[in-house]
Amino acid sequence: MGDEVTRVMVAVNESSLKGYPHPSISSRGAFEWTINKIIRNNVSAFNLFFLHVQVPDEDGFDDMDSIYASPEDFKNMKQRDRIRGVHLLEYFVNRCHEIGVVCQGWIMQGDPKEVICHEVKRLRPDLLVVGSRGLGPFQKVFVGTVSEFCWKHAECPVISIKRKADEIPQDPVDD
Amino acid sequence: MGDEVTRVMVAVNESSLKGYPHPSISSRGAFEWTINKIIRNNVSAFNLFFLHVQVPDEDGFDDMDSIYASPEDFKNMKQRDRIRGVHLLEYFVNRCHEIGVVCQGWIMQGDPKEVICHEVKRLRPDLLVVGSRGLGPFQKVFVGTVSEFCWKHAECPVISIKRKADEIPQDPVDD
Repeated sequence: MGDEVTRVMVAVNESSLKGYPHPSISSRGAFEWTINKIIRNNVSAFNLFFLHVQVPDEDGFDDMDSIYASPEDFKNMKQRDRIRGVHLLEYFVNRCHEIGVVCQGWIMQGDPKEVICHEVKRLRPDLLVVGSRGLGPFQKVFVGTVSEFCWKHAECPVISIKRKADEIPQDPVDD
Repeated sequence: MGDEVTRVMVAVNESSLKGYPHPSISSRGAFEWTINKIIRNNVSAFNLFFLHVQVPDEDGFDDMDSIYASPEDFKNMKQRDRIRGVHLLEYFVNRCHEIGVVCQGWIMQGDPKEVICHEVKRLRPDLLVVGSRGLGPFQKVFVGTVSEFCWKHAECPVISIKRKADEIPQDPVDD
């Protein structure tokens, strides 16, 4: 029973409250749940793949007018995104290191739900873990949920972990 | 990390192909996946709760006209359902026994999706595992899926395991 390790992909994103590159409440919760309830002390039986999908800013820039964009500006921006992504992954990689679980981190660009499903197809994990804000139907209409899309479309078993009641921020759309 | 065992509820149902009390393809698959990919050799860290929800026959009887129903007939029918349910659970309990995982089996009556969510509320498992036929949107409209309802409404993390491609019967609505 199970000579090969169980390969778990964990989709992680930044917090909208504390600001990038802090992990969101739901991705931190999903990660800790996976460690405590699934992996437990059986650390050598699991590998984790952290996937962080960065949504390209439509304007191209956060804090300057795109009309002034030079190729150099774009390069700097890409560089900055990369560094922020690495810092976000660092949180999870460090935790894994403490616990003794082998892991990898990936940073990609695009629409998170599409990229996650595409990477599931490519990397064929045994399980995809996604954090979820657990929004009500009204909030969902406007926000969309990555977890629901992945649950329907990803070609592997998917588990979504909702935030705990006591961790939900005042505006549930925040995370 | 994790002194308490991880309590996993597994919803199981009968096969529509081989006939009751054989387990359905999807519940057998979901169970084996949980053993192979999650529990692995860490058998003492997990408890399984098998929940089998029997849907009451609307006519009251499978193979006789309800106009002839006596209180005795009803009693026999209930008795027969009970025996069939026990036989279904036996399959899973025996497998757990072989593997060395502590488990319990429950038989209930009602609408499976409602009963499962209600039992999650009552028993508070760490994880609910449901097999899924993985039906397309067109088939879903007519059949409804227990897994989708549970994923949305059960008050614990939910994982649904689709049947493998090579296990799907000719009519995907069968299981």
